[in-house]
Amino acid sequence: MKTSKIIKTARKFAKPFRVTDGKKFRLRDYDPGDTLNLTDEDKPRAKEALATGIQALAELQDKLYAQDQWAVLLIFQAMDAAGKDGAIKHVMSGINPQGCEVHSFKAPTTEELDHDFLWRCSKRAPERGRIGIFNRSYYEETLVVRVHPEILKKQKLPRELITKRLWDERYQDIRAFERYLGRNGVIVRKFFLNVSKEEQKRRFLARIDTPEKNWKFSAADAHERGFWDDYQRAYEDTIRQTATEEAPWYVVPADNKWFTRVIVAAAVIEALDSLGLSYPEVGEDKLEELAAARAELMAE
Amino acid sequence: MKTSKIIKTARKFAKPFRVTDGKKFRLRDYDPGDTLNLTDEDKPRAKEALATGIQALAELQDKLYAQDQWAVLLIFQAMDAAGKDGAIKHVMSGINPQGCEVHSFKAPTTEELDHDFLWRCSKRAPERGRIGIFNRSYYEETLVVRVHPEILKKQKLPRELITKRLWDERYQDIRAFERYLGRNGVIVRKFFLNVSKEEQKRRFLARIDTPEKNWKFSAADAHERGFWDDYQRAYEDTIRQTATEEAPWYVVPADNKWFTRVIVAAAVIEALDSLGLSYPEVGEDKLEELAAARAELMAE
Repeated sequence: MKTSKIIKTARKFAKPFRVTDGKKFRLRDYDPGDTLNLTDEDKPRAKEALATGIQALAELQDKLYAQDQWAVLLIFQAMDAAGKDGAIKHVMSGINPQGCEVHSFKAPTTEELDHDFLWRCSKRAPERGRIGIFNRSYYEETLVVRVHPEILKKQKLPRELITKRLWDERYQDIRAFERYLGRNGVIVRKFFLNVSKEEQKRRFLARIDTPEKNWKFSAADAHERGFWDDYQRAYEDTIRQTATEEAPWYVVPADNKWFTRVIVAAAVIEALDSLGLSYPEVGEDKLEELAAARAELMAE
Repeated sequence: MKTSKIIKTARKFAKPFRVTDGKKFRLRDYDPGDTLNLTDEDKPRAKEALATGIQALAELQDKLYAQDQWAVLLIFQAMDAAGKDGAIKHVMSGINPQGCEVHSFKAPTTEELDHDFLWRCSKRAPERGRIGIFNRSYYEETLVVRVHPEILKKQKLPRELITKRLWDERYQDIRAFERYLGRNGVIVRKFFLNVSKEEQKRRFLARIDTPEKNWKFSAADAHERGFWDDYQRAYEDTIRQTATEEAPWYVVPADNKWFTRVIVAAAVIEALDSLGLSYPEVGEDKLEELAAARAELMAE
């Protein structure tokens, strides 16, 4: 397939799930089981399209790296078992790891809690020419901390700073941070892998019943499931407050893993394509240098 | 002297040089030779007051460290030979180095240029309980880079991001960053050591003519002096755009080193005092624990 056609297809697939204006966003408008009318019969074709897409992605990444000016930050957030790790693995495995770094953010360490909440993420922002992936991120602050406000106490914030305005302030700070990154050449794309409560249950049971999946399950995961509705509200509010033209959210249907991966790949291709990347042009000086080197080699 | 009196004096000295509302700021209203009518005869008394102030500062810092919630970020910017290093040395030498860290920012490294402009500074933001000192900072972006816009090219920014709005965007990003730090318990105080062109000349000549000061002088310093007026404009604009109630600038007269140090110390005392610091209160549990430990020790 020609690159231009791949990019057109990617745009078509990504569009229905991209949120650039939070004000109008309602989570219930997005169906976790959506496959854009593709059925299980289309799965093999979708997998082929994914492989073609990843190849195009690798070519775009090569230009990103060579040009060495823009960086791309991909942020993944989701409920447990929604398929974050799988999506990162399957979409990004085809690209050059030299130009890509993945950071997984767990519960903050003591050192991290001793700093402002963006600190552990901002210092890991990707270098120019790279794709940086955050598996969880500073959005945990408006998701897990929002659902469990008792975590705020562990953050050692001065008490007088914990006011009713705190969540609005965090949203404002996050918007300002992402706007700032964009101005500095780091474009931000955010993915919410939207799994249904029923599908999560099926996947949890599979983790419990399949010995080689046992390591992926912890009792804490099942406990968090008890806060499902609170989390859905927190995700909706977070997306409403932080989806912008320059740093959109993609609300990716996550009940069908094959479809999730197609949409994530499409969105990343769309993001890279938007940068109008090309290999650095070689100037007169460089051409002369190349000609001289050629002459020298030939004279050996 | 009682602590309350020291703090009152500190406030009195700091106030005339504090800028919390940039809109009204004009650099020409600030005299580099100002000493608040103190003369050379008052110098010994001023030095004594400085020593007393530093002691009070050390006590406040001890509480800051014990409470472990707030952090203080002090930023120093100035023309060459204005006395940044001396002010840091003389004001901060009395405090516990375990609770204080100084970062000097030189010309950015290749790694630093590969990131967004706040990156090298934000990752060095002080931990809770600490005083962080930036000797130069991200303000170089609106000072030296403003005066020498050709430096922008080295920053490897995508060309389409270098627009007329760039400086306003940097100011906006800096204001948002400092507001964010404040909300996270890191209070920011900024010092412009305001030296006159004549006094800089005297100090340069002293560096050239005194062998043990030779190491402090480089031809590049003299070269930068040629851009004096541009720098004054850049400082004025920077202070106009970034002086806020929560992150004020102090425009410190710098033609008399002894006076500079008094004002810097006064401003730092004022900042720490504004936090209403106290040693952590010990609860019932802890008191019982202490009593039990006491009993055990006595029974040995």
